[in-house]
Amino acid sequence: MKPAAITMGCPVGIGPEIILRFFDSLSEAEAPAAPVVLGDLGVLTHAAVQLGSTSQPVAWQLEEERKPGTVPVLELSRLNAERLEWGQPTKESATAMAEYIRRAAAGALAGDFSAVITCPISKKALQEASIWHPGHTEMLAALTGAGRYRMMLAGTRLRVVLVTIHEPLAEVSQLLTVENILGCIRLTADALRQDFALEKPHIAVAGFNPHGGEQGLFGREEIEIIEPAVRQYEGEAVVSGPWPPDTIFYKAANGDFDAVVCMYHDQGLIPFKLLHFKDGVNVTLGLPIVRTSVDHGTAYDIAGKGLADPASLRSAWLLAMDIARNRAR
Amino acid sequence: MKPAAITMGCPVGIGPEIILRFFDSLSEAEAPAAPVVLGDLGVLTHAAVQLGSTSQPVAWQLEEERKPGTVPVLELSRLNAERLEWGQPTKESATAMAEYIRRAAAGALAGDFSAVITCPISKKALQEASIWHPGHTEMLAALTGAGRYRMMLAGTRLRVVLVTIHEPLAEVSQLLTVENILGCIRLTADALRQDFALEKPHIAVAGFNPHGGEQGLFGREEIEIIEPAVRQYEGEAVVSGPWPPDTIFYKAANGDFDAVVCMYHDQGLIPFKLLHFKDGVNVTLGLPIVRTSVDHGTAYDIAGKGLADPASLRSAWLLAMDIARNRAR
Repeated sequence: MKPAAITMGCPVGIGPEIILRFFDSLSEAEAPAAPVVLGDLGVLTHAAVQLGSTSQPVAWQLEEERKPGTVPVLELSRLNAERLEWGQPTKESATAMAEYIRRAAAGALAGDFSAVITCPISKKALQEASIWHPGHTEMLAALTGAGRYRMMLAGTRLRVVLVTIHEPLAEVSQLLTVENILGCIRLTADALRQDFALEKPHIAVAGFNPHGGEQGLFGREEIEIIEPAVRQYEGEAVVSGPWPPDTIFYKAANGDFDAVVCMYHDQGLIPFKLLHFKDGVNVTLGLPIVRTSVDHGTAYDIAGKGLADPASLRSAWLLAMDIARNRAR
Repeated sequence: MKPAAITMGCPVGIGPEIILRFFDSLSEAEAPAAPVVLGDLGVLTHAAVQLGSTSQPVAWQLEEERKPGTVPVLELSRLNAERLEWGQPTKESATAMAEYIRRAAAGALAGDFSAVITCPISKKALQEASIWHPGHTEMLAALTGAGRYRMMLAGTRLRVVLVTIHEPLAEVSQLLTVENILGCIRLTADALRQDFALEKPHIAVAGFNPHGGEQGLFGREEIEIIEPAVRQYEGEAVVSGPWPPDTIFYKAANGDFDAVVCMYHDQGLIPFKLLHFKDGVNVTLGLPIVRTSVDHGTAYDIAGKGLADPASLRSAWLLAMDIARNRAR
């Protein structure tokens, strides 16, 4: 299998640091499957010295062998590492960051990489690079020509998929449609079967209102939108709902369901982060390539201080490899 | 200290069962502080035989000694236990249920009981008794002449207090006001100091929108309503926020905060039930009496089957005793 590619993310965020820590943590058994980095050799070398990393960043080319103990870097920028300041993206660092993403998408589409694992970028840096996508996922969707796509957050205990994401909560009710929810259920079902190798996945669809609306007493979204969407689903997955939001995550975390389809950001993120604050993985469903991402931001405030935790990157890599293997079956 | 009073709740729900199981579980050391039950001796005796309970329900009068190994019952109804069917409230059972609550409130106000711990009732049963309060808490607030009151859910890892409760989620934004939130912060601060004996409690106030609105990008409730409420608080507690909703519960559960003030039902209930599905306690803040409640319903579907778990009742009793002791200091 082709190596997975990690994009370095914002060069002045915690991306370089978690990449080095992640390579430091690779066991001998894992080394042959080690990913490659799309990024900046100078920045990584500089960071390795600062952090006392035991892994040696080295230049790497497509198809080249990877040496254990090294961090193979496909060089896509030559930033002046001495000049950059942690937490301060510049036009150069931001443009480089965007290039890592473009190259990752193109390489994965071309079959050079088995999966893409992305390190964090920031809106601020995207704007420095004059890129007007609202975020990382939207940019990758555009680059890979994806149609409908969704964010899943995956952990060992809980998987959630979001119908709406970055919307004011007061507007979510108007954004929910049968078609929208049904599309999300289908993507979730397909992903659980194809990517997670679950033949007959069990999917819970959350309600929207307290107690799931109590037969319309506290809101009608369940009756008018969510329930019809659940009923219209036809396929291999077992889909049920709408479930009262305040108990469904306990049930899912205890193994009753393989994923919960959530109506709004915090409905899914509150329980997910409570269980997977450090080791959560963001997976984009509906892309033609395998893409996972760390579940945290650039953390500019702690970048370069040796404090960043590579747990989410490690989980993202492991899950990306799983998905790539499952798709290849 | 006077005994605490447990109301039996709906006679055909799981109230009688969890009360017996709770008394069965009392240790020798706990027995002297055992509560009394406001309920029906016949129903409890009948249930004790059905369940093979080791605790003997006995008639009890105010001021009387309580005997270890017994369930002291202040007899407030004489229902025909043989005729009642589990899960089927009648006009008689519902009227009796309401009487337990009235007597508990009056007795606690009069100083006969140190605290009231309520077993579950149902809306259906309330209506059978021609009582039009939306719920238990509203009824107790009316009976005790309370002004502003709020629901707190308390567990060993997390405490949440709700600004709005049983409202359609799409309407919550319009119900949030500075005054409303500030009042809730104050009640929370007073309760944590007085009832939980925390001299300088740390209170987190949750935001409303994804990421707390990101400076107004995903909603303005934080800027216009929540932040001004936090700023206006003056008192002994350390109050901060609005915090991004998806990470604040992790922080609170890990000890950074003593309570989280939540804007809507599921914001608080989703993380709370994930951590305290079985042992959560509902505490009413702002009443002149100490009142805790189990955190579950009448569970008509399993009533009488020996399946009900008394964990929440035990937690509710322990917490009520704590609060009563703290208030008496």
